[in-house]
Amino acid sequence: MLEALFNPASVAVIGASRKPDKLGYAVVDNLVNGGYPGTVYPINPKATEILGLKAYPSVLDVPGAIDLAIIVIPHKYVADALRQCGQKGIQAVIVISAGFREAGREGVDREKELIRIAKEYGIRMVGPNCLGVIDTYTPMNASFSAGTPPKGPIGFMSQSGALGTAILDWSLAGNIGFSKFVSLGNKADVAEVDLLQAWADDPNVRVILAYSEGLPDGQEFMRVAREVSRKKPIVAVKSGVTSAGSRAVSSHTGSLAGSEQAYKAAFEQAGVLRAQSMEELFDYALAFAYQPLIRGDRIAVITNAGGPGILATDALERSGLQLARLSPETVHKLEAGLPEAASAANPIDVLGDALSDRYELALDLVSADPNVDGMIVILTPQAMTEIEETAHAVGKTARRIDKPILGCFMGEYRVNVGVEILKQYGVPNYPFPERAAAAFAAMRNYRLARERPDPEFVRFDVDRQSVRELIDKTLEEGRVTIGDAEARAILKAYGFRIPRSRIAADPDEAVQVAGEFGYPVVLKIASPDILHKTDVGGVKVGLQTPTDVRDAFELIVYRAQRYVPQARIWGCLVQEMVPQGLEVLVGMNRDPQFGPLVTFGLGGIYVEALKDVTFRVAPFGRLDAEEMLKEIKAHRLLDGVRGQRPADKEAIVDTLLRVNQLVTDFPEIVEMDINPLMVFEQGQGAIPLDMRLVLSGRKP
Amino acid sequence: MLEALFNPASVAVIGASRKPDKLGYAVVDNLVNGGYPGTVYPINPKATEILGLKAYPSVLDVPGAIDLAIIVIPHKYVADALRQCGQKGIQAVIVISAGFREAGREGVDREKELIRIAKEYGIRMVGPNCLGVIDTYTPMNASFSAGTPPKGPIGFMSQSGALGTAILDWSLAGNIGFSKFVSLGNKADVAEVDLLQAWADDPNVRVILAYSEGLPDGQEFMRVAREVSRKKPIVAVKSGVTSAGSRAVSSHTGSLAGSEQAYKAAFEQAGVLRAQSMEELFDYALAFAYQPLIRGDRIAVITNAGGPGILATDALERSGLQLARLSPETVHKLEAGLPEAASAANPIDVLGDALSDRYELALDLVSADPNVDGMIVILTPQAMTEIEETAHAVGKTARRIDKPILGCFMGEYRVNVGVEILKQYGVPNYPFPERAAAAFAAMRNYRLARERPDPEFVRFDVDRQSVRELIDKTLEEGRVTIGDAEARAILKAYGFRIPRSRIAADPDEAVQVAGEFGYPVVLKIASPDILHKTDVGGVKVGLQTPTDVRDAFELIVYRAQRYVPQARIWGCLVQEMVPQGLEVLVGMNRDPQFGPLVTFGLGGIYVEALKDVTFRVAPFGRLDAEEMLKEIKAHRLLDGVRGQRPADKEAIVDTLLRVNQLVTDFPEIVEMDINPLMVFEQGQGAIPLDMRLVLSGRKP
Repeated sequence: MLEALFNPASVAVIGASRKPDKLGYAVVDNLVNGGYPGTVYPINPKATEILGLKAYPSVLDVPGAIDLAIIVIPHKYVADALRQCGQKGIQAVIVISAGFREAGREGVDREKELIRIAKEYGIRMVGPNCLGVIDTYTPMNASFSAGTPPKGPIGFMSQSGALGTAILDWSLAGNIGFSKFVSLGNKADVAEVDLLQAWADDPNVRVILAYSEGLPDGQEFMRVAREVSRKKPIVAVKSGVTSAGSRAVSSHTGSLAGSEQAYKAAFEQAGVLRAQSMEELFDYALAFAYQPLIRGDRIAVITNAGGPGILATDALERSGLQLARLSPETVHKLEAGLPEAASAANPIDVLGDALSDRYELALDLVSADPNVDGMIVILTPQAMTEIEETAHAVGKTARRIDKPILGCFMGEYRVNVGVEILKQYGVPNYPFPERAAAAFAAMRNYRLARERPDPEFVRFDVDRQSVRELIDKTLEEGRVTIGDAEARAILKAYGFRIPRSRIAADPDEAVQVAGEFGYPVVLKIASPDILHKTDVGGVKVGLQTPTDVRDAFELIVYRAQRYVPQARIWGCLVQEMVPQGLEVLVGMNRDPQFGPLVTFGLGGIYVEALKDVTFRVAPFGRLDAEEMLKEIKAHRLLDGVRGQRPADKEAIVDTLLRVNQLVTDFPEIVEMDINPLMVFEQGQGAIPLDMRLVLSGRKP
Repeated sequence: MLEALFNPASVAVIGASRKPDKLGYAVVDNLVNGGYPGTVYPINPKATEILGLKAYPSVLDVPGAIDLAIIVIPHKYVADALRQCGQKGIQAVIVISAGFREAGREGVDREKELIRIAKEYGIRMVGPNCLGVIDTYTPMNASFSAGTPPKGPIGFMSQSGALGTAILDWSLAGNIGFSKFVSLGNKADVAEVDLLQAWADDPNVRVILAYSEGLPDGQEFMRVAREVSRKKPIVAVKSGVTSAGSRAVSSHTGSLAGSEQAYKAAFEQAGVLRAQSMEELFDYALAFAYQPLIRGDRIAVITNAGGPGILATDALERSGLQLARLSPETVHKLEAGLPEAASAANPIDVLGDALSDRYELALDLVSADPNVDGMIVILTPQAMTEIEETAHAVGKTARRIDKPILGCFMGEYRVNVGVEILKQYGVPNYPFPERAAAAFAAMRNYRLARERPDPEFVRFDVDRQSVRELIDKTLEEGRVTIGDAEARAILKAYGFRIPRSRIAADPDEAVQVAGEFGYPVVLKIASPDILHKTDVGGVKVGLQTPTDVRDAFELIVYRAQRYVPQARIWGCLVQEMVPQGLEVLVGMNRDPQFGPLVTFGLGGIYVEALKDVTFRVAPFGRLDAEEMLKEIKAHRLLDGVRGQRPADKEAIVDTLLRVNQLVTDFPEIVEMDINPLMVFEQGQGAIPLDMRLVLSGRKP
């Protein structure tokens, strides 16, 4: 896939220039001096030769075939040039030129035209508004970057070209090697999913890194990323997370969601590792790129200093990793081989006066211990420390064994030589133990994500048709919200257990209904215009007698009329009184990028005060639903604390899966809340006490 | 203070050696080649001259006065050498030798002897088991470090010598400058507080850094740090936080506390900034050391790339800082001076093709804007970027204005020259925007800590004597726990509002007491041996009739006998039924290092499930109590959500302050819980429903 983009036999540079301060010069120069083995055709109507290559007025004038074209000309000429590429049969085009979607309304139109042309001719287009594409294996530097990065196992895609330049500059200092580097620009055509698919089976890409500012087709991204992440790790930085969430939402579920949560859920579900910063991105990348995957979470720390050993221990524990418990044989042999004052327990302290032989001894023994899944080797440059020899010992061990080893040679002036040696052996070095621990945590998370089975969508036998009709009817009436009474019909159709209830138009009817259900009962205002009933005093519970019911009816209606004068009031809903249980919330909010985002959390007043909620992008599987229960901070409440019986978790899982199905079946539903879902003791089920839905006005 | 340690007129090196592989050689060498201007006396009974200096058999043989002695001899000779130092009248001694407290029981004894000798002669002693002391202004390198760090504004103290070597190695690469560097070792005498006091008014120390593994006298540390942090920032890394907390505790409050929380509370109360890693420690240090303090939290970002600008914005928002809203004049002038495609709003994007002149324009305008408190200048190395000129522009602006500027020149290969120029101007550079934002957050936190008034201890008029008597009586009876019935007396004496209650020995008496109080009532098991009454079904609420009371009494007692067969049972406590309110917890747990740690959080079943609690080291002030209410995650519950009335916060503050007084008055109290404290609507007060206390068996 995208072979023409990364490994073309010939490249045309449209806008090639003879002036060294022009991008069109830099691109040709990078191709030529980057060692590109194919044919380069500079395209420039005013030149006959550029950098020693014969120039042509247009691609149509080039005698041979062209696989890839790079466009670096002012935006107004780009469409024509792209059309000529199509006519020439060029399969891939990189549009470096700016002045498109990022440049206001006219730019948007210009970009749409490019998309149209590309589609017409079947061209795969990178950009516009990008830095270019580099493949160090071809090798081809089809960008205006200053310098070509060293060869290495990392595939990097960046929505920000400028960030790309910083990363390239960093790689040039010898910090990291890339196999592929793509500046995605405006992503008019080629986007993250295309590159994920292209790199999934590329042997030169061992880890995929992405910097992204948005993923318009979130569901597609999830689908592809889930597949690709089974093959190799994907690490991503998503920026712009805090300023998002500006979309106005009316429900409580909505106010809890927002892009940040959607990204968190989507990345986790798709097996994409999230880095919180660019530093984390590359810290993780180094470990994945150069070390074998980890097979457990038991880490051993070898150190010549107590303090950093403690820091590493703290960081490992904080990340949920385990300090490996060495086997008795290992401890015994360490005790025999190390001085008495050394620590043979993990962290293994070989002491400040350790020469490389003590490190070697510890490395040999610890790396062979079946209780150890990975190692951090800490070195502080003390008076007698043999920095180079120790680095060689670490490197040789890393070469020999199939467990990851991360270095933590601390300092810079004296230790740098050791860090360079480690690099030759493919052992990444982290200047502080906390960063090495974080890299191991990322490796552990990747292992867990990879071992996770694919989600299986659970489909219950439901009455989809009647919900279809109710939604159609609601929309035809020009309404978009569905409140309690109508929502009940939906709940019923999707197999939720619901309390008996009926709308009463006046106090007499309410008393009659209550008599039928049996006391106590609940009264709720019945109005399509009042969403948050408790806010207007529209709910009365525990009504024991006909007088209670009569009084409550009149009070509720009076209040509703007073607080929401314009509300249409249908009367009161009389409802069977549900016994007290644990109140939880199940909701859904449609994220603009990822679609239906299902929420689970503590309900009642706690949902707002604590925001103790967790999210999944629907459709998800049973395992996801089960995990959601464990993810909320208050998860221990579900198990029963202080003598309480455990809650019926299976009933919550069932509710989540039915909501999962409902919102997947009906894309018209943009928001919904079941709050509270009253959950009883294990085996006793759960009942939605209140539910509301918001529909999209537009038919999907 | 400690003048003899940092600026001695003469230094003796006990254990000076002629062999270059000995520490005793390295110390003399560092003194001589580190440019120490005073007199150095090598002490070695077997030598007459070392490194060209006349050697003496002992300090007593030295003709002149000696201010400082450094001891580098095997541990068995150290005590005698120290005694001779005392006889010679030496004021300060650095014991580099190891083999003391860190080396088992005998080592502990050896260390105690050193302390005894030092005390006898009035010697201030650093170590034992340390790397030494460096003062770059004296200048004096009294350590066996490999190299002397560059001069600079940072005072650094480290409990780990090895970590010190790594830091020094890092500083040698030109990353940072130190004025003082102290390896504290075992802290037998000189500890953190001594250095804090010594450096508080030292003009060469602008920021104090500490790496610490424990603070045995936590309250003294807090007292001193609070004073010193008013004068200059103190940034500390505390390691060993996760493995702590192993102390067995019986109460729920106890299980929530533990060292980590104590450190967090203590550092905040003392104005000490906590760094989570060594990297953070130095990131913060650079900002404090070289830039003016910040006066607000409005940050402007100038960048030549959109992506990093977004990353910076995200990071600033996440840290609770504000993206400065530029004044209309600034925006207007930026619009006039920058190209149309640039962004004149914050983050100010001068675009990828910006030369240094655009940066200069933006720097001039933004730095002068009164709405801006600090600036981050981001540079990515794009094709036309003028790295050096831009660095000079940033540096010159920083020199001119009294607002902090942090650099974020991203990359390494090309940008390094710019980073070096920034350094010359004292502008710290952070390779990623997130780290610059975190540094600004630390500066903002320091400003807030500094502006915070000193805590004023609130003393209520209480009946201290009767509590004294009750505690004495309890201890005399060989008990250490005080349960509900007795605890009530304590609550009453300290002015808490308590429900009426009385112990009834049998069902008849219970019915009689309930009649007196009026129904409904609560019955609770009365036993000194049952702490968690609900766990054994020992509480019944809402008893409406004499029959209810009689049944409940018998059931409760039956259960108690069955579940806790060995418990002494006094009968049941009959209690006035308190109306439902918001259940919170107020507790206390005595931290081994910092003393009484007072807890506030959600009560009832939520305290365990959510651990939504916050802590203060007592004694604290009213402001602290008020802040505690805001610090819990569920703080919005206190304000009333979804139509509920606000809770009586003043009553919670009152409770916290009375507990504050109680645990300060009685150091015998090692744990206490008020759970729940039932809090009513604003103005309606709060009532402790249950309370228990654990006393220390030993009289303090």
